[in-house]
Amino acid sequence: MDAKVETAANALTASEIAAAVRAGRLTCEAVAQACLDRIASREAAVQAFAHIDPAQVLATARACDRAGAHGPLAGVPFGVKDIIDTFDLPTEWGTPIHRGRRAGRDAACVALTRRAGGILMGKTVTTEFANLHPGKTRNPHDLARTPGGSSSGSAAAVADHMVPIALGTQTTGSTIRPASFCGVFGYRPTHGEHRMHGVMEASGSLDTLGILARAIEDIALYRDVLLGVPPEPVVAVARPPRIGFCRTHNWGQVEPATQALVEAAARRFAAAGAAVSDVRLPDDFALLDAAHRWISSFEFVRTFTWEIEHHWDEISDTLRQGRIADGLSCSLERYLEMQTVATSCRQRIEAVWDDHDMLLAPAAFGEAPLGRPAFAGAPVYMMWTVLHLPAIALPVFAGPAGMPIGLQLLARRHDDRRLFAGARWAWRQLT
Amino acid sequence: MDAKVETAANALTASEIAAAVRAGRLTCEAVAQACLDRIASREAAVQAFAHIDPAQVLATARACDRAGAHGPLAGVPFGVKDIIDTFDLPTEWGTPIHRGRRAGRDAACVALTRRAGGILMGKTVTTEFANLHPGKTRNPHDLARTPGGSSSGSAAAVADHMVPIALGTQTTGSTIRPASFCGVFGYRPTHGEHRMHGVMEASGSLDTLGILARAIEDIALYRDVLLGVPPEPVVAVARPPRIGFCRTHNWGQVEPATQALVEAAARRFAAAGAAVSDVRLPDDFALLDAAHRWISSFEFVRTFTWEIEHHWDEISDTLRQGRIADGLSCSLERYLEMQTVATSCRQRIEAVWDDHDMLLAPAAFGEAPLGRPAFAGAPVYMMWTVLHLPAIALPVFAGPAGMPIGLQLLARRHDDRRLFAGARWAWRQLT
Repeated sequence: MDAKVETAANALTASEIAAAVRAGRLTCEAVAQACLDRIASREAAVQAFAHIDPAQVLATARACDRAGAHGPLAGVPFGVKDIIDTFDLPTEWGTPIHRGRRAGRDAACVALTRRAGGILMGKTVTTEFANLHPGKTRNPHDLARTPGGSSSGSAAAVADHMVPIALGTQTTGSTIRPASFCGVFGYRPTHGEHRMHGVMEASGSLDTLGILARAIEDIALYRDVLLGVPPEPVVAVARPPRIGFCRTHNWGQVEPATQALVEAAARRFAAAGAAVSDVRLPDDFALLDAAHRWISSFEFVRTFTWEIEHHWDEISDTLRQGRIADGLSCSLERYLEMQTVATSCRQRIEAVWDDHDMLLAPAAFGEAPLGRPAFAGAPVYMMWTVLHLPAIALPVFAGPAGMPIGLQLLARRHDDRRLFAGARWAWRQLT
Repeated sequence: MDAKVETAANALTASEIAAAVRAGRLTCEAVAQACLDRIASREAAVQAFAHIDPAQVLATARACDRAGAHGPLAGVPFGVKDIIDTFDLPTEWGTPIHRGRRAGRDAACVALTRRAGGILMGKTVTTEFANLHPGKTRNPHDLARTPGGSSSGSAAAVADHMVPIALGTQTTGSTIRPASFCGVFGYRPTHGEHRMHGVMEASGSLDTLGILARAIEDIALYRDVLLGVPPEPVVAVARPPRIGFCRTHNWGQVEPATQALVEAAARRFAAAGAAVSDVRLPDDFALLDAAHRWISSFEFVRTFTWEIEHHWDEISDTLRQGRIADGLSCSLERYLEMQTVATSCRQRIEAVWDDHDMLLAPAAFGEAPLGRPAFAGAPVYMMWTVLHLPAIALPVFAGPAGMPIGLQLLARRHDDRRLFAGARWAWRQLT
């Protein structure tokens, strides 16, 4: 990437942009133009956007300047994964079936972002139905590699300084994984906290929004905006956090270089005064991978009954032979059994928080692979998603090929603010 | 109502229609025509439908006849609450803001119904945004009275033999209440079991689908169709069920005549061999009414940010001064505190099922009131909705004014099939 961008408006964080705009040091138009310039120079290579209308962006920015930009995200350009409805751009879900689809209104999360002063930059590329079949986006750190999926365009656009923040979603690892692969912060909130109105449902028991950003402060700010509450700053931790190092049953499938980096982080946290202890979850927590597989696929095929009935030929082989085949083969009895497993584990994970403020785990199995696979490697995300825990990926490592590798931190349900405080402490120990 | 309809095709249950169609004893067209005739004679009075296209209904029915009608709902006309998307009719959410809105695809539940052979009869009237402000529908048993809300048109259309089954939704009591007021079976499934894709979100933590029908067998059949699983018949109970009579903390607000009817039902069940015992929930379960109020309103105002920002003048005073005012005044701390209350109660209600197969409770505070109030009287639904339990309303009583009054039965989460079996046993004791 071009070093020069580091000083341009498009390279600022959302918090910095909003403060500068509110103080009159930057106009919405100047910020929007800087982001559009960056996109103009890089989009042919990165291909982060599914839809963008520069004239509309600039018109909106000028209107905000005229009206007096205000709000916690005053003048902040944002990207929106193309499974989330916007009244002024199509929302196509990454499939030719819904080419040109117009929702006629904003999703709740988009309306909340605009109300806070945000300026929609464009729709970012998603994999097909936010599942495995990849879109066109490439990893900005190495165009030969995948950005990860399914929030591919949102992660790539944030990493490449096209926008400071972007909306994604997560049903498996669709925010944490591309954040790790692209070297940005990724946040999956506590399941259920945000309204999903206008967001394509994939598997409702597991779906959440996701946020991609280049600063923890931006994640915290944007979460409050999406909750529709007055923003609160990230607080300083009173003491180094109690950290549970949870390798999980999938540790053996994590690449050795990534294992070593996560181990080193744990030692660094301990050296900085954190109480770091190994957490071994009960053996039956390994069932959560199967719970994820069957719950997500059972729900997915029912969600998309209309598309399966009327547009079978336009669905990728990847999806037909993967999640759809799984979902069609899953009985109600198996689905309900897996929901029971999930409920039980959600209740029993609570005991972990008696002794720990956060859990530490890998954010991905390793570096972004070559080629276009949206998903690859060990399923290090599934159990956390099924557990409904808030998670954040920190872009702290570089792997053997020089590509980013993230670290994952998790906290108790609804303890998202404490997670941000702890994550900022952890981030400062490693950078 | 006209006694003659009892022998016409429109007065058959869904199970009877599907069996007759599959056996070649009835055509889809004949059934559709019978329902259209009934609607033609009664709609001016009842006003159950928001959108209906008789020519399209007949064309679809004839096409099904030509193709050879099959499936568990072969040839069964169904109504769809107008907050649920259909590709061939508008979906307007009961508000002028979305007049003429076209979704371009079917909601998951609609696609599943059509795949099973169902024939969409039309969109049924909803209250504004499935909240309190009433639509035009009147109670078919007494046009001077409310049908209840928010699934007003679905309940009235089923009660008046316009369709055998209809889709509703429930966030508070929006299926159980109109079922009770209109004298039909109403079913609220275990929260989370059905895909909500294409269904307007109101308050996602509480929203479910709902089914209105004139037979328990139809409820069970339709539930399986909506789950996308092979239908299983309602089984006979091995022994009379163990029934917990749960008056709840709102009992004092239930009308005396209704209290007496529910008490009489409990005695009747005991006389028929059921083990009936009083269940008194812990005192803090009374907090669930407040939990419902704050969770639903906090979520509602965020869900509808776009409408509130852009169409404030087209929102009713009822909604602005009710749920919207509540939602705007609710802090994140209160919302999360109420979610904690809800989670705790959901876990602790589990102990009830050690000794009981079902709970017995009022389905409404009394008979349908005069006038148009969609909601009225004691909040006898809220706690059950927050607890995420499956519930069924049985149309077993007539009140002092001769209007229907329902009985509510509830079961453990995901025990919906056992609930149907027990409900059929209970129904047979009372009729």
